[in-house]
Amino acid sequence: MTHPFERAIALEPSSDDTFTGQIPADYANFIGPFGGVLAAVMLNAPCQSAQRLGDPLSLTVNFGGPVSEAPFTVATRPTCTNRSSQHWLMELHQNGETPVTASAVFARRRDTWADQERRPPQVAPAAEAEPLATDHLPRWVSNYEMRVVHGGMGFLAAAPQASDSSETVLWIRDNPPRPLDFPGLAAIADNFFPRVFVRRPQFVPVGTVSLTTYFHADQTELARQGDGFLLGRAWGNRYHKGYHDQSAELWSDAGQLLASTHQVVYFRE
Amino acid sequence: MTHPFERAIALEPSSDDTFTGQIPADYANFIGPFGGVLAAVMLNAPCQSAQRLGDPLSLTVNFGGPVSEAPFTVATRPTCTNRSSQHWLMELHQNGETPVTASAVFARRRDTWADQERRPPQVAPAAEAEPLATDHLPRWVSNYEMRVVHGGMGFLAAAPQASDSSETVLWIRDNPPRPLDFPGLAAIADNFFPRVFVRRPQFVPVGTVSLTTYFHADQTELARQGDGFLLGRAWGNRYHKGYHDQSAELWSDAGQLLASTHQVVYFRE
Repeated sequence: MTHPFERAIALEPSSDDTFTGQIPADYANFIGPFGGVLAAVMLNAPCQSAQRLGDPLSLTVNFGGPVSEAPFTVATRPTCTNRSSQHWLMELHQNGETPVTASAVFARRRDTWADQERRPPQVAPAAEAEPLATDHLPRWVSNYEMRVVHGGMGFLAAAPQASDSSETVLWIRDNPPRPLDFPGLAAIADNFFPRVFVRRPQFVPVGTVSLTTYFHADQTELARQGDGFLLGRAWGNRYHKGYHDQSAELWSDAGQLLASTHQVVYFRE
Repeated sequence: MTHPFERAIALEPSSDDTFTGQIPADYANFIGPFGGVLAAVMLNAPCQSAQRLGDPLSLTVNFGGPVSEAPFTVATRPTCTNRSSQHWLMELHQNGETPVTASAVFARRRDTWADQERRPPQVAPAAEAEPLATDHLPRWVSNYEMRVVHGGMGFLAAAPQASDSSETVLWIRDNPPRPLDFPGLAAIADNFFPRVFVRRPQFVPVGTVSLTTYFHADQTELARQGDGFLLGRAWGNRYHKGYHDQSAELWSDAGQLLASTHQVVYFRE
């Protein structure tokens, strides 16, 4: 049986390095599809290209306008290829508009000096954390199992609450569980709800404007992680004149930093 | 008199949204120009466009291949414009290659709920910090005044040294001083030497692969900062198979977070 995520990010080649896709309603956000699944689609285009060398190292996705449930095309092209890396540009077209653009770097990695300086949060296992109730949330949330250790959304609390800290620590994986791969990790990188929802007690209109993810893991580490829970930590730095940044880390259950990710989020008062 | 930085990032329109530029040797790095001045050039293209709305909010620059001291062209185009933001793609062409691509989001910002959650490092003033000796460093470094509070490059020490922490805190501004603007801030965001040079005692070949900067400040805050020292803090998270990430913050002398920036760096053993 095909996992819903596979159906959501599937791309049909329509010519060399141009693909057709369509995101089903089960990954819908408030307006258009969940940004994480769009990020995975944008990354999937070069992944599917016959010209592709190596594995994803970085991905930036810019969200300019709404994408509908109708079909779209993704055009991708390598702009520069050298011995160890390859640079790509991707554009999503729908109804004569270009609502999403992206760039990616792929790399052929090899052994070097290595160290992990950052440490994972020390928390109780996923089984002991509270599952996120998905009742009042958009449909895409049901495709993930999120277990919040701390830093939930203020407006979901029985008595809506503000917080001085935007930090969230949570366990997360696809629902139903799915072996981790690069598109899956690219999507989960956008799973952390906007930090303004942790800081403030009310719901406000929000949207990710630009999302960048760095993939630290190679295929071997992703395979080792399998379909287990990832440990995530997210925080924001500054909220100012309609936008805030946020950063997040995604850890394997063995304590390896698989990805770090950053975004700038639009919010209305 | 024109500041050297103005000359380095100057763009001459050659047609609608296509510009010609050339980076002088005084901004040279080991191979090609300093990445920060290239980032500033890429941002300068939409800044100079008649179609531009608002001020820079985010910038991603992908460095795929070397740029020479010869002239180049930068083509820029808006991909999506809506009420509050505008998305751009930029490509630098030289000798039939596309060594650098970039994307940017510009925004018309307005007052909302605001907070600065992150705090600046508490350090002694710039006058008390040690100026970075530029003797053995590439030419571009002389265009900045850097005063390192802690976390210098291991191979520059009298007895080369390794460090368990990649954190650098330093004061920085253009040399000669120059009033801060968005291109200037975009360049300074790439000023933090690769974290592998803080961690390890030896020089190794390195290069920024992809750089993303979020601009938290608006024009008013940049004007208020003027040509004074910025306070910067940088750190890395994971070094693995030829690449490491690094993040940095740039603070005004009044303690406002003006920009946060992230990059992935190639390094050889």
